[in-house]
Amino acid sequence: MTLPHGVVETPVFMPVGTAATVKAVPQNVLEQVNTQILLGNTYHLYLRPGHERIRRLGGLHKFMSWPHPILTDSGGFQVFSLNHLRKVTEEGVEFRSHIDGSSHFFSPEHSMEVQLALGADIAMVFDECTEYPATRERARSSLDLTLRWARRSRDYFYAHAEEVPWFAEFNGRTPSLFGIVQGGMYEDLRRESAERLVELDLPGYAIGGLSVGEPREHTRAAIASTLPLLPADRPRYVMGVGYPDEIVEYAAMGVDMMDCVLPTRAARHGLLFTSEGRMNIKNQQYAEDQDPPDPACGCMVCGRYTRAYLRHLAMAKEPLGGALNSIHNLYAYLDTMRSVRDAISLGALDDLVARTRGRARQHDVS
Amino acid sequence: MTLPHGVVETPVFMPVGTAATVKAVPQNVLEQVNTQILLGNTYHLYLRPGHERIRRLGGLHKFMSWPHPILTDSGGFQVFSLNHLRKVTEEGVEFRSHIDGSSHFFSPEHSMEVQLALGADIAMVFDECTEYPATRERARSSLDLTLRWARRSRDYFYAHAEEVPWFAEFNGRTPSLFGIVQGGMYEDLRRESAERLVELDLPGYAIGGLSVGEPREHTRAAIASTLPLLPADRPRYVMGVGYPDEIVEYAAMGVDMMDCVLPTRAARHGLLFTSEGRMNIKNQQYAEDQDPPDPACGCMVCGRYTRAYLRHLAMAKEPLGGALNSIHNLYAYLDTMRSVRDAISLGALDDLVARTRGRARQHDVS
Repeated sequence: MTLPHGVVETPVFMPVGTAATVKAVPQNVLEQVNTQILLGNTYHLYLRPGHERIRRLGGLHKFMSWPHPILTDSGGFQVFSLNHLRKVTEEGVEFRSHIDGSSHFFSPEHSMEVQLALGADIAMVFDECTEYPATRERARSSLDLTLRWARRSRDYFYAHAEEVPWFAEFNGRTPSLFGIVQGGMYEDLRRESAERLVELDLPGYAIGGLSVGEPREHTRAAIASTLPLLPADRPRYVMGVGYPDEIVEYAAMGVDMMDCVLPTRAARHGLLFTSEGRMNIKNQQYAEDQDPPDPACGCMVCGRYTRAYLRHLAMAKEPLGGALNSIHNLYAYLDTMRSVRDAISLGALDDLVARTRGRARQHDVS
Repeated sequence: MTLPHGVVETPVFMPVGTAATVKAVPQNVLEQVNTQILLGNTYHLYLRPGHERIRRLGGLHKFMSWPHPILTDSGGFQVFSLNHLRKVTEEGVEFRSHIDGSSHFFSPEHSMEVQLALGADIAMVFDECTEYPATRERARSSLDLTLRWARRSRDYFYAHAEEVPWFAEFNGRTPSLFGIVQGGMYEDLRRESAERLVELDLPGYAIGGLSVGEPREHTRAAIASTLPLLPADRPRYVMGVGYPDEIVEYAAMGVDMMDCVLPTRAARHGLLFTSEGRMNIKNQQYAEDQDPPDPACGCMVCGRYTRAYLRHLAMAKEPLGGALNSIHNLYAYLDTMRSVRDAISLGALDDLVARTRGRARQHDVS
């Protein structure tokens, strides 16, 4: 993908930089672990520090000193997952801030306005993320609403795309808007959502409404049945996944982009993803273990620190612990995707999938 | 100072690595900001992860992957400052863990045993840190006890100095033990404490019992009157100081070593030390300020991030905020001491002291 702020090699995993920061990881370290593109959360940035402030400061890239590509979500997922008092109408969603309880309203137009102020390279249409489980009627009305909102998103976005803070600096280049497929766990509704969405002729498409609590087989089935309906010549993005073996499997199925808070959130709880499986670094067994977290890993954490030291930091709740664990996990995810890209160019993807299947998630290191 | 783990140029400021970590700052960044020697807290490391564990793992240098010099305090200061249920006898101090309330006992011999297990390059005698204010009688009995404990510390330390974990690896080199002057704010008692301590013929001496709440003029007076009593051919260390202008002033008075949690603790509360004074980065005035924290600073934080971004991280309580602020403040402290060393070799120290006097502490940047 050639974006205004750089070229992204796919398939790609995008670290999540919720509040203009990938929690606890400095930007130069994100570069060192070969982060190609970051995800920013529109909901969080809208509430704090505010999209108007970020626009005045030159956009999110300048604000956080990340001169490489950024994708922003639409805010929809957080509005629906963090707000129990939300009120959805045809016009949009009224919700309360999780910070101070203040009342706010997001419409498709307003989400586009916020995302254009942030100035990401890729923005997402404002969607209603269908909850799991959902009845067929509920999934249908939700996908219908999402499609109407997608049209409104597109109309507003392309009418105002030149308002991104970096438009002049980048010689008139504009950001891209991706659509989002919904439809719950109903294959025919997913199909209808995808087919009607593709009619909007957007530069990329995402499969949304996954990682909302459904069994893993449903996730895989929804991806498998939806992917062939999306144009293969445009980026196909599955939002909010996954475990290390899942991102390999989905990439092998044809997914170009994924994002997930798992590597960093798990890291802050002491969970490390290694080539041998997942490791809870707080376990007593690591108290005097002088091996690196993953002897097969090339990251700066595995190159310098022992399991015993990382366990100590985790037990003592030292901030360095979450930071080092996050760096390792991000490296592991991004290096996994690099090996997927290498395997694709070598025609050896099946081997890689077979090797990684089930390992990282299902086996705890013993 | 030529120590087993390296050469230290004096005067030197030592960042505090309480629990085998300078809070939120990775070891490679400590190297990047030119940290020459770290201070480790014996009390904290004894309680968690435990000195026996650290000894089995090869000592503190190996445990935390810090192959450069380390100094450990004696545990005395924390025992006295963190414990309200402590019980002091001639033999030592009984205290309760601030982590789990368990009961522990430190004697001079036990403090030495713990410090030798940690394996610092420089250990400190076990002292009773006299509180402020203290009556003359109290200060006298406290300094007497500290002197008796210093002798016991020395006797145990040098009988067991070959037990440091790195003794064989470093071809039979051993660590050094520094004495600590007490005496409260009474000049004659400080004098007596210093003179009797020097009779022990230790390789270095510290002035303790400062930064315990006394007015700044008392700190300066105690340093000024005590320094000439300590051998100028051995390192003279003032424990627990200070603000940026103070460390310049004390270095100019002849102090060789200082340590303080201020640069990192203040950083976590959003207080930055700059060449123009101190800056509370949370202030509203920085919300859209695109300057680096200190335009005159050469650190990696000032090279990449704006005041607006650091303010956002602080307001959002993002862990990256405390980390970046800590890196800047440590760089500022260590670069200040570098400029002191440069000024000494150029014979321009008076100019430097005049330029920095009062600035960093007393003026808030406006």
